[in-house]
Amino acid sequence: MQNIAILGASGYTGAELIRILLQHPQAKIRVLSGESQAGKAMHEVYPHLAFAGLPALVPTQGIDYSGINTVFCCLPHGTTQDVIAALPAHVRIIDLSADFRLFNVDTYATWYGHAHKAPDLQKSAVYGLTEHAREAIKKARLVANPGCYPTSAQLPLVPLLKAGLIAQDNIIIDAKSGITGAGRAAKQGSLFAEVNDGISAYGIGAHRHAPEIEQGLTNAAGKDVLVNFTPHLMPMNRGILSTIYVSLTKGKTVADLTACLNTAYANEPFAKVAPAGINPTTHMVRGTNLCVMSVFKDRLEGRAIIVSVIDNLVKGASGQAVQNFNVMYGYPETTALEQVALFP
Amino acid sequence: MQNIAILGASGYTGAELIRILLQHPQAKIRVLSGESQAGKAMHEVYPHLAFAGLPALVPTQGIDYSGINTVFCCLPHGTTQDVIAALPAHVRIIDLSADFRLFNVDTYATWYGHAHKAPDLQKSAVYGLTEHAREAIKKARLVANPGCYPTSAQLPLVPLLKAGLIAQDNIIIDAKSGITGAGRAAKQGSLFAEVNDGISAYGIGAHRHAPEIEQGLTNAAGKDVLVNFTPHLMPMNRGILSTIYVSLTKGKTVADLTACLNTAYANEPFAKVAPAGINPTTHMVRGTNLCVMSVFKDRLEGRAIIVSVIDNLVKGASGQAVQNFNVMYGYPETTALEQVALFP
Amino acid sequence: MQNIAILGASGYTGAELIRILLQHPQAKIRVLSGESQAGKAMHEVYPHLAFAGLPALVPTQGIDYSGINTVFCCLPHGTTQDVIAALPAHVRIIDLSADFRLFNVDTYATWYGHAHKAPDLQKSAVYGLTEHAREAIKKARLVANPGCYPTSAQLPLVPLLKAGLIAQDNIIIDAKSGITGAGRAAKQGSLFAEVNDGISAYGIGAHRHAPEIEQGLTNAAGKDVLVNFTPHLMPMNRGILSTIYVSLTKGKTVADLTACLNTAYANEPFAKVAPAGINPTTHMVRGTNLCVMSVFKDRLEGRAIIVSVIDNLVKGASGQAVQNFNVMYGYPETTALEQVALFP
Amino acid sequence: MQNIAILGASGYTGAELIRILLQHPQAKIRVLSGESQAGKAMHEVYPHLAFAGLPALVPTQGIDYSGINTVFCCLPHGTTQDVIAALPAHVRIIDLSADFRLFNVDTYATWYGHAHKAPDLQKSAVYGLTEHAREAIKKARLVANPGCYPTSAQLPLVPLLKAGLIAQDNIIIDAKSGITGAGRAAKQGSLFAEVNDGISAYGIGAHRHAPEIEQGLTNAAGKDVLVNFTPHLMPMNRGILSTIYVSLTKGKTVADLTACLNTAYANEPFAKVAPAGINPTTHMVRGTNLCVMSVFKDRLEGRAIIVSVIDNLVKGASGQAVQNFNVMYGYPETTALEQVALFP
Repeated sequence: MQNIAILGASGYTGAELIRILLQHPQAKIRVLSGESQAGKAMHEVYPHLAFAGLPALVPTQGIDYSGINTVFCCLPHGTTQDVIAALPAHVRIIDLSADFRLFNVDTYATWYGHAHKAPDLQKSAVYGLTEHAREAIKKARLVANPGCYPTSAQLPLVPLLKAGLIAQDNIIIDAKSGITGAGRAAKQGSLFAEVNDGISAYGIGAHRHAPEIEQGLTNAAGKDVLVNFTPHLMPMNRGILSTIYVSLTKGKTVADLTACLNTAYANEPFAKVAPAGINPTTHMVRGTNLCVMSVFKDRLEGRAIIVSVIDNLVKGASGQAVQNFNVMYGYPETTALEQVALFP
Repeated sequence: MQNIAILGASGYTGAELIRILLQHPQAKIRVLSGESQAGKAMHEVYPHLAFAGLPALVPTQGIDYSGINTVFCCLPHGTTQDVIAALPAHVRIIDLSADFRLFNVDTYATWYGHAHKAPDLQKSAVYGLTEHAREAIKKARLVANPGCYPTSAQLPLVPLLKAGLIAQDNIIIDAKSGITGAGRAAKQGSLFAEVNDGISAYGIGAHRHAPEIEQGLTNAAGKDVLVNFTPHLMPMNRGILSTIYVSLTKGKTVADLTACLNTAYANEPFAKVAPAGINPTTHMVRGTNLCVMSVFKDRLEGRAIIVSVIDNLVKGASGQAVQNFNVMYGYPETTALEQVALFP
Repeated sequence: MQNIAILGASGYTGAELIRILLQHPQAKIRVLSGESQAGKAMHEVYPHLAFAGLPALVPTQGIDYSGINTVFCCLPHGTTQDVIAALPAHVRIIDLSADFRLFNVDTYATWYGHAHKAPDLQKSAVYGLTEHAREAIKKARLVANPGCYPTSAQLPLVPLLKAGLIAQDNIIIDAKSGITGAGRAAKQGSLFAEVNDGISAYGIGAHRHAPEIEQGLTNAAGKDVLVNFTPHLMPMNRGILSTIYVSLTKGKTVADLTACLNTAYANEPFAKVAPAGINPTTHMVRGTNLCVMSVFKDRLEGRAIIVSVIDNLVKGASGQAVQNFNVMYGYPETTALEQVALFP
Repeated sequence: MQNIAILGASGYTGAELIRILLQHPQAKIRVLSGESQAGKAMHEVYPHLAFAGLPALVPTQGIDYSGINTVFCCLPHGTTQDVIAALPAHVRIIDLSADFRLFNVDTYATWYGHAHKAPDLQKSAVYGLTEHAREAIKKARLVANPGCYPTSAQLPLVPLLKAGLIAQDNIIIDAKSGITGAGRAAKQGSLFAEVNDGISAYGIGAHRHAPEIEQGLTNAAGKDVLVNFTPHLMPMNRGILSTIYVSLTKGKTVADLTACLNTAYANEPFAKVAPAGINPTTHMVRGTNLCVMSVFKDRLEGRAIIVSVIDNLVKGASGQAVQNFNVMYGYPETTALEQVALFP
């Protein structure tokens, strides 16, 4: 049995962690923290958690970690490095922020606008794209949980680049995300009437998830990868659909790509190639830890189109965090993650 | 271990039963039937069930029931009486249609437009509003699972009428429902563009759930109850919110009503009075078997307002069906029904 | 040609006024004010107005009114009385806030939590429910534009109460509103993910529009009217649907009510009784200044159900404001208001 | 004054034509036809048109064209060629189907699955992308109104290809469309609960609008253009956002592209380059005939990203049809098309 503290539990990823961990027989939620909401009962912050018997929110400062062995950190980007650096040595940490995802602290500084505050700790952090880092995760003290867009992009692309099936210099990722990716902060751009019944691109050519994606793809390809990545915001609570345009290595076919992914993920519980004839949709993964992907023939010679879907709050955040928790402690990897998609 | 057949598995309540039963350690789905979809793999009908290892759909005619002991029947209203009457004696049945909900076959004929086809079987059917019929459900061969609107209305009103706290002749139920209540049939009125960003009332003064509600309330009150019931259709996948306007019995107060419901449901896992200060919302119950209710003071003397919420596909259909299944077989009543609401 | 200033133009009612007035051949928008947004071009605040050739936003303080003859005031409740009291005598004013709607300044103080700041001006204000106050509006300097919920409720109820067809002591108004009614302020409760795919009641038994409704109905009935009014918030940009439960005066029928409304509104361009067989829906009025209503027979003896729909931003705010502007200046009342509903 | 017949008036493009033409001082709607709905009053088919004083629907067969001079044809693809071929010589026609859009009848046969039924008439048809075909439209008897996706893609790409600023062999169009593009037919895939809160790609590499886009781009480039075109379906009533990935001609920059579009559309009322700093969103164009576009710098050398938005029912269908009508008859091109976007 692990005793859990969730820091930053009043955000959407915090609430989602609670939802999942309440199903976990080896996890006991002991501490929930939240800054502006400290002192409130959880049902005042999230009415849907009213009947779950949770502790009230406390300030992150002053938590007694003596009875805690695992910390899930859901604090905002930029505030997390200091907090985690100050945690006692006996706790293992899964960080859902971006603060430890980029191995290169200079890249971090470039994209996040300030120097990394815990560069030594960064060296020991493991990037937790579970399917591709299990051995390291098992032994990690600090897991940097991947971003939502990077998860949806890397899961199909990593095996294809490793196998040399696609060109590394012509990858275009057009991603469509639900609004929870923007968090629960009260921003005009996230208001219902501003989002409903419309769509917009944002961060065009300049989104912080681009270097995170490139880091993973560069590792897979063994040479530098730069991608075009264009995120879009649409009226949907949960979900990311990434449409990925790639060039085939000479002589390779869509069938080769599909075979590669089938092999890579044959025994994976959460990374899945869609059955033939089924277009992956975000509806297939809502509330689940699945990534479903498929490769399609382009009309143009030498190209293919990949569609990949996840629930941004689950496989893109809290679900993958629990998957990593399971790997870290040797529990069956699907524990607490076996729900079927909530559709419709 | 129970071996399950789901008849009419291609509709929304069928898919929802599958979602829930896949979490049930004592239920094994053996047979799925569907008329127009017979012969298809389940993922062709519901892509989100692609990875669940389900049997393909077969025609309802010709099912071999020798290895089946429980039938969940999700067939359309009006077609079910004949099918259930023909089932072998060894199976126990939970029927999600309206075909066995009205004890009075004349009332049935009036509202459903044809004579009841299995009046003898009707006599042995148990109306499965679980919290108020456990003893009968335990012994029942045939459980008539309540309708969605009737569940949301009866759970708060039955205890209040039994206790004589509200007038039985002045009950107004204004209900707002998600669109899945209309089923998966391709109807113009259910199209996205016809439902999105709008609301309408329907069946005003003439909805078939009115007599079902009145049957339950009459039993509770010990005298005839007629209600005003006005359903509305709104852009929401799942959920019913019923706003119920009642007159207090002379000398009674809102506090009396709240106390009555607190007592009635003190030990219930799924019928819940909202914490003070929390307005019940459908978000609190999405994907769960909960009914959450609360009583509010009206500005007008001698009146109160009750708000009650359920997920129409869970407590309003398939979840209550599994709850009844658990009662019938003596399993813990919450088995397979312990998910926390999917919010947001 | 009237020269217009819109105060508080950065809110939704301000933007909607602009949308409508841009179609008006006798209105010229000269000044747009906004506090936090002052100094910005309008397209920075509302990209959809990018190509309309509008002036930039200025602070409300310091506007030169010498070239202005009409002020539309879209400032928040509570801040408006001072601003309007300070306007020069030559401008005529249409105020979209609640600050001048309640004739009784004590009622105002009770519901809005502070003493009325311009009680003398209040005496000359005309409550602008256009269909029922044309003669007064023609001569008014200051029109208090009605609230959205009160408009949807009063238009069907005023003629029925005047005619003595319904009881004045048993009126229940269950209203469902789109989210723009909550304004453009960045509030957690208005976020997409908090509103989407759900519904909640709010202000139960305590909403500030109740006394406004009662004021109008009391005038119509000639005796004190108290109503039950329960608003609900739902995932919809625009629209209010009010379902109103009434008791018929002895001997009166639904046909009498329909006939009364048909007569009252026979020549009205914006108050309409729905054709027989058509349920009023918010889709019928989106983007228009229409109020569509219909009376339905209840199953219960002696009762009726009225459904009334408006677009809360048009007939419930900016459209009625322009309708009043047309009346004040003697323009054809439908000028700039003849758009057909945007459906789907 | 033109006397109008709308064939196929019961679909969404028919209703949208009515909405627009009711604002047109030189258009009088004389005949509305609809097959399955013939005999009904328009308000029975579209309640929002209840108060517009429209004629009832009649069968298309048997219309007396003697008093008609303009026909808008909104019939389904494949059924239109015969109908239009049979029209009397004195009427001018704007066809909103795909039946006359492809100049090459072999291409038509390949993509639409049957031989063209009016190849001679095809020769005289003018492809009505208004901004690029005004002179031909003025003299045309038969205008083939462009498809929705092709309009959103061609308006930004045609000037850029004409100017030689982008490569013609590496154009990727990732388009996101509202559901009205699928029409009003009752299809399971268009149901609210199937579309809401999700997104999917469809017709991947095989959509019929690809050859239509390529035809226009090939004309502009002066050499064969093949494009990648991937449409997506999302929960939105109206709107298309196309994200277009292009390679710059050597030495050219994003500023060159923006300048080219600014020049091309400097005097256009409906084709607009967004102001600097504004991302085009579908909200900017809802209910309007605008196409708003913008060019963005890609992180990758030598590439650019173009975002283009339209309302699929207006500039993508009925609005452009009325724009063409205005051109054909010499009316000011903006007549009946000057509404500001309905936002929110």
